[in-house]
Amino acid sequence: MSHAVSPLAPKDLPVAPAVPGVRFATTAAAIKYAGRTDVLLAVFDEGTQVGGVFTTSKCPSAPVDWCRARLGGGRARALVVNSGNANAFTGRKGVATVEHTAAIAAAAVGCSPDEVFLASTGVIGEPLDAAKFEPVLAETARRVAEGPWLDAARAIMTTDTFPKVATRTVAIGGVAVVLAGIAKGAGMIAPDMATMLSFLFTDAAIAAPVLQSLIAQAAGDSFNAVTVDGDTSTSDTLLLFATGRAAARGQVEITDAADPRLAGFRAALDELALELAQFVARDGEGARKFIEVRVEGAVSKASARRIARSIANSPLVKTAAAGEDANWGRVVMAVGKAGEPAERDRLAIWFGDIRVAVDGERDPAYSEAAASAHMKQDHVVIRVELGLGTGSDTVYTCDLTKEYVAINGDYRS
Amino acid sequence: MSHAVSPLAPKDLPVAPAVPGVRFATTAAAIKYAGRTDVLLAVFDEGTQVGGVFTTSKCPSAPVDWCRARLGGGRARALVVNSGNANAFTGRKGVATVEHTAAIAAAAVGCSPDEVFLASTGVIGEPLDAAKFEPVLAETARRVAEGPWLDAARAIMTTDTFPKVATRTVAIGGVAVVLAGIAKGAGMIAPDMATMLSFLFTDAAIAAPVLQSLIAQAAGDSFNAVTVDGDTSTSDTLLLFATGRAAARGQVEITDAADPRLAGFRAALDELALELAQFVARDGEGARKFIEVRVEGAVSKASARRIARSIANSPLVKTAAAGEDANWGRVVMAVGKAGEPAERDRLAIWFGDIRVAVDGERDPAYSEAAASAHMKQDHVVIRVELGLGTGSDTVYTCDLTKEYVAINGDYRS
Repeated sequence: MSHAVSPLAPKDLPVAPAVPGVRFATTAAAIKYAGRTDVLLAVFDEGTQVGGVFTTSKCPSAPVDWCRARLGGGRARALVVNSGNANAFTGRKGVATVEHTAAIAAAAVGCSPDEVFLASTGVIGEPLDAAKFEPVLAETARRVAEGPWLDAARAIMTTDTFPKVATRTVAIGGVAVVLAGIAKGAGMIAPDMATMLSFLFTDAAIAAPVLQSLIAQAAGDSFNAVTVDGDTSTSDTLLLFATGRAAARGQVEITDAADPRLAGFRAALDELALELAQFVARDGEGARKFIEVRVEGAVSKASARRIARSIANSPLVKTAAAGEDANWGRVVMAVGKAGEPAERDRLAIWFGDIRVAVDGERDPAYSEAAASAHMKQDHVVIRVELGLGTGSDTVYTCDLTKEYVAINGDYRS
Repeated sequence: MSHAVSPLAPKDLPVAPAVPGVRFATTAAAIKYAGRTDVLLAVFDEGTQVGGVFTTSKCPSAPVDWCRARLGGGRARALVVNSGNANAFTGRKGVATVEHTAAIAAAAVGCSPDEVFLASTGVIGEPLDAAKFEPVLAETARRVAEGPWLDAARAIMTTDTFPKVATRTVAIGGVAVVLAGIAKGAGMIAPDMATMLSFLFTDAAIAAPVLQSLIAQAAGDSFNAVTVDGDTSTSDTLLLFATGRAAARGQVEITDAADPRLAGFRAALDELALELAQFVARDGEGARKFIEVRVEGAVSKASARRIARSIANSPLVKTAAAGEDANWGRVVMAVGKAGEPAERDRLAIWFGDIRVAVDGERDPAYSEAAASAHMKQDHVVIRVELGLGTGSDTVYTCDLTKEYVAINGDYRS
């Protein structure tokens, strides 16, 4: 797991502010890794509301099943996340493990097990022993504090090469509230639902059904728009916790998703989710290039999304990017295979600002040198204009390098 | 293009018999490669019938458009195939090129341009100059002969590391007929239609509509069941030519696809197509393992096919195979992401004969050593039992290695 930090990592690690009502601590439970933290415990003030979205996998992990079943209550007092073992495809043992873990955390925190949310990431198919949590959670619960977020982000990393933290401050009805989020993810990343693990926290007072609406919308153009390898995890989890502590500063609780006072918060949440999601593509296993795939002129946004995913998941497009090869022919191929409406003779393609193809053939002014120069950037923008309608969408990914193969050829053994 | 021969190549190069009514020759037209043949011209006796299937790409190449438009006639006198340039996404120039090429070939062979079938493989988006064919096709037409097939297979290779030839002899109504086929393909291989280029030849007397029915069926479980990278070419072409010369030996022409006398021929054609298709997976770019993915107990064959493709196209499954890692958790992931009916707690998974998971968790008798031993074979069999119905299907692929990335990171430039 000791891969060099992605060259696409942000240059400065962010210092996120405390979120009133959220305290946390990390610990080393030796679940798989030695010499590093692998458990995050977050404790929330009473009255904290929660919303969330999960993997679309038909074989979800036991913690995903657990969280889904508890989300209806809308109340959260604790979050336990471990790295090193996904507790996925672990059968009845896995169910017993989440029940046992929630009970241990509930006792440590002083709440009902149904107010404990759980997430696990790491190897699939290995039983996860809840006894690992027994000796550490009570001690960890005594140490919880309002920071630092980087420690929380580090404890949930697997093949990630940098901790992922983002933050925003925004007003609701004139009262400033804080948003902070952490994420992990580098492989098994595909945008079929809230991808990978990400946990967002705010002190805003927002009712659970509103949180659910906000988080589902925020996931659409962020976590669901990121792909590393087209492989959808069994464990994808995105949760948004709102402690409501801003109410003490005069923020009126929001109970209607259509409340116009939410506009700023909604925009900030969307931005935060996008920033964290882009971090995941920037930390894609073996990534050397961050790739933005923009599709315009499609018959609908959904069609544009499918074409953009087809491009972003194409091994041939991704290896061309790794080779800094302005191989727009492979973009044509990926448009063609998407199965969506497209007319070859209306297609135009840009690499950055360089139009390489127009009207179904190479641009008459095509310059290999100019196109290649763009491919040498570490942020590659591929734009496709279909000329059919007004649907557009953007998907984020990374290149496919030999390091991806190396990382995944010896991850488990 | 000088990659070492795939370790999965057949040990002996086949010697295929002549197919009466089919003569061919190859030439070096310097379309892209120097010092090798890159054009195949096949000439058919009058009365030759043809059927074919093509890529499902929405951006097909100019030769694919040409062939599709001429297939209705059912008659063929010549086939021209070039490697080095796909004549795909070449706009009006590409259309002019196929028209010009067909005219040159028709003049050389003495037939109508509408009886000339064309296929091109290689780089996408570069104009292909028909003038390249002008000086060589007439000369090549004078040299055509009934063999050897290996020369034909070599002329159409791109990143292929070995020529792909297969043959069968079978009786129709008691009269022996010959089937011979060649194929090319190593990358941009996905099973959305007749994948890559493959040309099959027989001296049987079979009417074009029957050929069409036979070839469409044969493609289903062979070329459509192979994937290297999930990337569908703009140029996939599979054609079956029947010269009818066996009629002179007493074979009654078959004009009905339901004719029971076709049973043996149909089976031989299906086998031949499967053999050639498997060669493509065995020559997958960078391949070190041939992987057979078998899905059983699905709700339908179509559902089994989609799940098998999800497994076979998963970069994480393919890199695990490259690393000889018995990582069945990634197989669970790929089943889960397929979007098809699956119940986690009914799943069972085998690597070869080793059952690694059952009832939604690791097999109680699981032996890492035994599973790993299977992964060290160069033919890996992944079998999934869903326990839901009677649908089953098999898909063929190869592992994803650093060499795939190397080959595709510098293919064009």
